[in-house]
Amino acid sequence: MRISVIGTGLMGTSVALAARAHGDDVAGWDVDPDVLERAAARDAVDPRESLEDAVREAEFVVVAAPIAQLPTAVAAVLAATTDATVTDLGSTKASVLRAADGSPRFVGGHPICGSETRGPEHASASLFAGATWFLTPDAHTDPARHRLVHTFAAALGATPVAIDADAHDRLVAMTSHVPHVLANIVANQTGAARVEGHEPLAHAGGSLRDMTRIAGANPRIWVDIYLDNADAIRTALQEHRRRIEQVEAALERGDAGFLARWVGEASQNRRRMLDREYPDPGELQRLRVHVPDRPGVLAGITQALGAERINIEDFELHHVSPERGGTLTLLVGGEDEANRAAALLESQGYSVVVSAVIEP
Amino acid sequence: MRISVIGTGLMGTSVALAARAHGDDVAGWDVDPDVLERAAARDAVDPRESLEDAVREAEFVVVAAPIAQLPTAVAAVLAATTDATVTDLGSTKASVLRAADGSPRFVGGHPICGSETRGPEHASASLFAGATWFLTPDAHTDPARHRLVHTFAAALGATPVAIDADAHDRLVAMTSHVPHVLANIVANQTGAARVEGHEPLAHAGGSLRDMTRIAGANPRIWVDIYLDNADAIRTALQEHRRRIEQVEAALERGDAGFLARWVGEASQNRRRMLDREYPDPGELQRLRVHVPDRPGVLAGITQALGAERINIEDFELHHVSPERGGTLTLLVGGEDEANRAAALLESQGYSVVVSAVIEP
Repeated sequence: MRISVIGTGLMGTSVALAARAHGDDVAGWDVDPDVLERAAARDAVDPRESLEDAVREAEFVVVAAPIAQLPTAVAAVLAATTDATVTDLGSTKASVLRAADGSPRFVGGHPICGSETRGPEHASASLFAGATWFLTPDAHTDPARHRLVHTFAAALGATPVAIDADAHDRLVAMTSHVPHVLANIVANQTGAARVEGHEPLAHAGGSLRDMTRIAGANPRIWVDIYLDNADAIRTALQEHRRRIEQVEAALERGDAGFLARWVGEASQNRRRMLDREYPDPGELQRLRVHVPDRPGVLAGITQALGAERINIEDFELHHVSPERGGTLTLLVGGEDEANRAAALLESQGYSVVVSAVIEP
Repeated sequence: MRISVIGTGLMGTSVALAARAHGDDVAGWDVDPDVLERAAARDAVDPRESLEDAVREAEFVVVAAPIAQLPTAVAAVLAATTDATVTDLGSTKASVLRAADGSPRFVGGHPICGSETRGPEHASASLFAGATWFLTPDAHTDPARHRLVHTFAAALGATPVAIDADAHDRLVAMTSHVPHVLANIVANQTGAARVEGHEPLAHAGGSLRDMTRIAGANPRIWVDIYLDNADAIRTALQEHRRRIEQVEAALERGDAGFLARWVGEASQNRRRMLDREYPDPGELQRLRVHVPDRPGVLAGITQALGAERINIEDFELHHVSPERGGTLTLLVGGEDEANRAAALLESQGYSVVVSAVIEP
């Protein structure tokens, strides 16, 4: 297939590399000649002089421009082509669909994968492996072109999921944009506070670290996402505030029953999330081990576990400091597996705390 | 030293194991005879018949009761002893300090380590290694006893930090209790939503997973913590809502300048948090690798990195599924180290996405 990639940053170049690996012919263009040159240097695209030049002979065009430029770029590609199928990779879908103005050749797309990096040098053909790839065909879309984009996304290792564009934007507001907003707020609220000379940030435990891992994510990308999806984000934030007020009221009246039901509901929801990832989350056991910060510890542990054929679901080693060492957290499926892993680690001189991931 | 541990669950038994490892003599009692028996079976304590029996000859008493029983237990221990130094391990400090009623022998304590497990079988002598251990001496406290508790916490591998009890409760409201509340709310809001037939939970990306990792944590422990620290939590939640309203207003008026400054502030705060953990967070590079779910992958990668003496700061492997594989995320210090690690992994057939942890 003759493919054209418009915008050769991280995402566009990753698509180009994956398509080339499949034997497709890939032309490319970027508004920044330097970015285009760097993508060409990675042998991801044949560089072209202009957008029109890049799409002239394309059967399939992937528009990988930043959110703020995306509607204009998609409209330009549709205007410059007569028969090509056109898709995009933007994090929001309503605005780009409006720009496509009912063209049967356009199918909106959004692969769910990290947006924290930029530049063609960070691109990877396997970026989309295992990811959900939303597609937003509508009543105007030619079904054959929807199938083509679906097949393309699947060929890159992703799982295509069709969804209405507005529904997509409300869904990602909840699953991605609001979590980013809250992470920023928690980081800023904790960062601004001083409690009688103590900086709360200096005493952050694992919970605060988890909540703020995505705080401060690339403002060049995120400010445009927030603005483009402002209505859906505001609606979700209002609902979030309403739920906080309920909890505040329960705290004020000392309502243990409400709080217990509410924590129980959260536990159920977390379990449903884990259900998607693990065959049997109710069986999952967590092992926590304090390990010294010295070379060979990681390899020693993983080799021993591998030799005993203990199947690790999750494996996390968080460095604390050379003086204090770090914490290793393992998730294994089932108590037997957990006991074998704990015995093995204890025989290496570590002491291990085991617990169920989901409270029984 | 003759130590007594009142409450032989996870925390109390961990203290007992660590104290015994130091050569201390440890008696113990628990309101639940079964829990006491299990702690004794681990050789952590000499079991006694009653609280009074357990503390009679103690020089040092550690009260490790759940939050709701803590004030009563501390008052009982102080009444049953005349010269022993008494401390506790509770997550909140104002209520227990009130129960101690100005006793010079009492020094409140709170080691910051996981509360997600229960039972003496999960106890570990190294539970406190590397943890912050808050101590809350006040104007009534005998300084020699404060020093004794300080030395004890340090001997268990923790870092003692003295703080006013009310300040402590406001601080942990921000660093721990509010993150737990928000995780529950995000899990419940996302779990309750349906967007035109789609379940947002089913499409959770990494950001939602990070935000809800602590959702649904043990209601038997957490409901009492929320209620005991209700005022400080409510104050912090009100401030959180106020900050959300600011963001909503900025979204409504399309204020890109506000949003950019706000994300930038979050980035600075995250950097300050990382400053505590890493020698030079500005240098940290993140490598992301998609790996298949098959035995030996983990050991193969850690061995190769170890052999090349690449110093790993963080190492995370999150399992997605046997079909889709998982994502390995590495943090290494510096671009050189990142390039060497990427080259090594690429030579093993993986493709690697590299990015700076903190945007330059």
